[in-house]
Amino acid sequence: MPQGVVAGSIPLFAGHPSPDLLPIDGLQRIIRSAWDAPNVARFLNYGDEQGDRQLIEFLVERLNRAEGLGICGENLMIIGGSTWGVGMATQQLTAPGDAVLVDAPSYRDALHIFRDHRLEICAAPIDDEGIIIADLERCLRKLAADGVAPRFYYVVPNFQNPSGITMSRERRLAIIELSRQYDFVIVEDDVYSDLRFEGAAPPSFFDLARGENVLRLGTFSKTLAPGLRIGWLIASPDRIAGFVESGMLRMGGGANPFTAAVVADYCHSGVWEAHVQWLRGQYRRRRDIALKALEASMPSGVTWTQPRGGYFIWLRLPSSAPVDALEEQAQEQGVYFASGKGFYVNPADGAHHLRLSFSFVPLPDLRKGIEILGNLIARMAE
Amino acid sequence: MPQGVVAGSIPLFAGHPSPDLLPIDGLQRIIRSAWDAPNVARFLNYGDEQGDRQLIEFLVERLNRAEGLGICGENLMIIGGSTWGVGMATQQLTAPGDAVLVDAPSYRDALHIFRDHRLEICAAPIDDEGIIIADLERCLRKLAADGVAPRFYYVVPNFQNPSGITMSRERRLAIIELSRQYDFVIVEDDVYSDLRFEGAAPPSFFDLARGENVLRLGTFSKTLAPGLRIGWLIASPDRIAGFVESGMLRMGGGANPFTAAVVADYCHSGVWEAHVQWLRGQYRRRRDIALKALEASMPSGVTWTQPRGGYFIWLRLPSSAPVDALEEQAQEQGVYFASGKGFYVNPADGAHHLRLSFSFVPLPDLRKGIEILGNLIARMAE
Repeated sequence: MPQGVVAGSIPLFAGHPSPDLLPIDGLQRIIRSAWDAPNVARFLNYGDEQGDRQLIEFLVERLNRAEGLGICGENLMIIGGSTWGVGMATQQLTAPGDAVLVDAPSYRDALHIFRDHRLEICAAPIDDEGIIIADLERCLRKLAADGVAPRFYYVVPNFQNPSGITMSRERRLAIIELSRQYDFVIVEDDVYSDLRFEGAAPPSFFDLARGENVLRLGTFSKTLAPGLRIGWLIASPDRIAGFVESGMLRMGGGANPFTAAVVADYCHSGVWEAHVQWLRGQYRRRRDIALKALEASMPSGVTWTQPRGGYFIWLRLPSSAPVDALEEQAQEQGVYFASGKGFYVNPADGAHHLRLSFSFVPLPDLRKGIEILGNLIARMAE
Repeated sequence: MPQGVVAGSIPLFAGHPSPDLLPIDGLQRIIRSAWDAPNVARFLNYGDEQGDRQLIEFLVERLNRAEGLGICGENLMIIGGSTWGVGMATQQLTAPGDAVLVDAPSYRDALHIFRDHRLEICAAPIDDEGIIIADLERCLRKLAADGVAPRFYYVVPNFQNPSGITMSRERRLAIIELSRQYDFVIVEDDVYSDLRFEGAAPPSFFDLARGENVLRLGTFSKTLAPGLRIGWLIASPDRIAGFVESGMLRMGGGANPFTAAVVADYCHSGVWEAHVQWLRGQYRRRRDIALKALEASMPSGVTWTQPRGGYFIWLRLPSSAPVDALEEQAQEQGVYFASGKGFYVNPADGAHHLRLSFSFVPLPDLRKGIEILGNLIARMAE
């Protein structure tokens, strides 16, 4: 169970994959067959700081095939998951007192990382197409007036955590334009893009900017298993070399040689694409059930996003239902969600928001948890 | 093969375990049996930021039993290997421009980490009992005169990398005294202590200081397999809580849930102690062969340490044999060693030193490599 989960409760806060979505059989097959004596050093000894070669090769080939990126092995390194990559990027690109740009709301763990690095965090609000460019420009002009150059803009571009929103192509292009004008890097935390349920994906920032001044993070946490702690970073060859060589990011023999080799063999065996395809159906079904339950249970005045992929739905509560009061009452009934307050630089901005995760809880609990929340919100309006 | 190894060469530089010392059968048994469906989330999902509970429990019990430490679960967290821990400690305890204290020579990757964090590195020489206290005091007085308080003293206390030296109990006590007087932390990178071939171990800094202001790092890299990337950090409960909560050290669900669970189950099955016992015999044999080969091959004027454990022997070359010239000639004959220059803040201090690792190469290569070096050094004296 995720940390902090009370037995018997409905943890709608948990951004974990449901245990039945973890490919235990497939991974066990790989681990049983691939790991023989001539191969053992690749699994068990120190590796290369850039990461498992066969996994790098697989990812480069896949990204070039699926997106026409045109990257090579020098553009990619293996990392211990994407949150870890956000920490790495922050460590490498900033010093205490520097400024970074984020969406409001934004990924909670990223805000925590930026705060503990003692950065000035400048947030601009999002709408259904992502960050609002006029507001971002206002941030940038204000920083410029103070003589501050922001180091990077951090974004989850697809099925954003917490809102589920995907940023439009136009917004991406406008941000790339601003990144050139104001000289900041774009850190693209692209963890959910493989879990698209419908519609076409806009090109990545990395693609649109032709790889210039973009760090793009990816992960196997959502499409294989978080416990393996394997992700990747795509950037220009000189940036990758800088990360690999940096004493500040020393991993001691590359990111997780054992699990990286397992993931590489799993992917090379050809079963990963089918697994991702299957997962898309599973998560789409979960999303549909959650949206249907919201439709059936929520009183008027509550609005929510319609994510086309990923793990999350973002709710806006009516003024009669402050999230703190709802949280207290919901927990009494065993329902836990992620309060909107954790996703804002200024927590009060999230006082009428909450994030529901449809990825983890059993389907009956998903319906029941949403129904309980709907009843509580309705009662608060009385 | 370790990174940078030329096929057919004798890589006496490699601080890797020899592939035949990796417990492939034992680990495969664990991975095949322990990882069943009710257990799968522990292996494959996000874990607790402090690390796998069962591994924490095992380590606490073992350290209390073997050393009488008297620690509890709040004193220990799981990390992704000890080099990673050095990075964590540096990140958490220092800011650019701060000073740290090290041995001369010291672990090369630690120096790399400190340098890239833009720290002032103050080194004092070692003798057969570890750092020379009078020289360390001179460093401290000089820093104090400049108004600088060093943040920590970094040391590999047992079978030091690169020298193989173990610091005496008296020196440890003197350093703890100084750490109180000058208010610095001791970072004890205790990676080799389980590989003791003979004699009794002095108590750890953590033990002698009753856990006050000591961070002690341990690892399974030397006694199980580096590719699993599992180590641990012991410190006071408030320091551990600080590390676990810190956004600067975010791992995204704890250090490597999959391999941590594998290691925990391996250890709990009771086979680890026997494996460590067996490894001690294997590495002792390798050490003996290396020392015998040095005795037989080295001309007069070459001296070396007599490590009682660990991986390394440290050679001092005569003035006729500068390490740069020897390195060039040795590489022409396919023999690679670690030049002494990488282990000093001021590389020139290592211009007549080299580190031999007896952990990795096949035994005939160990003898042959040392013989080739002996011949080259003898010829340089002619």
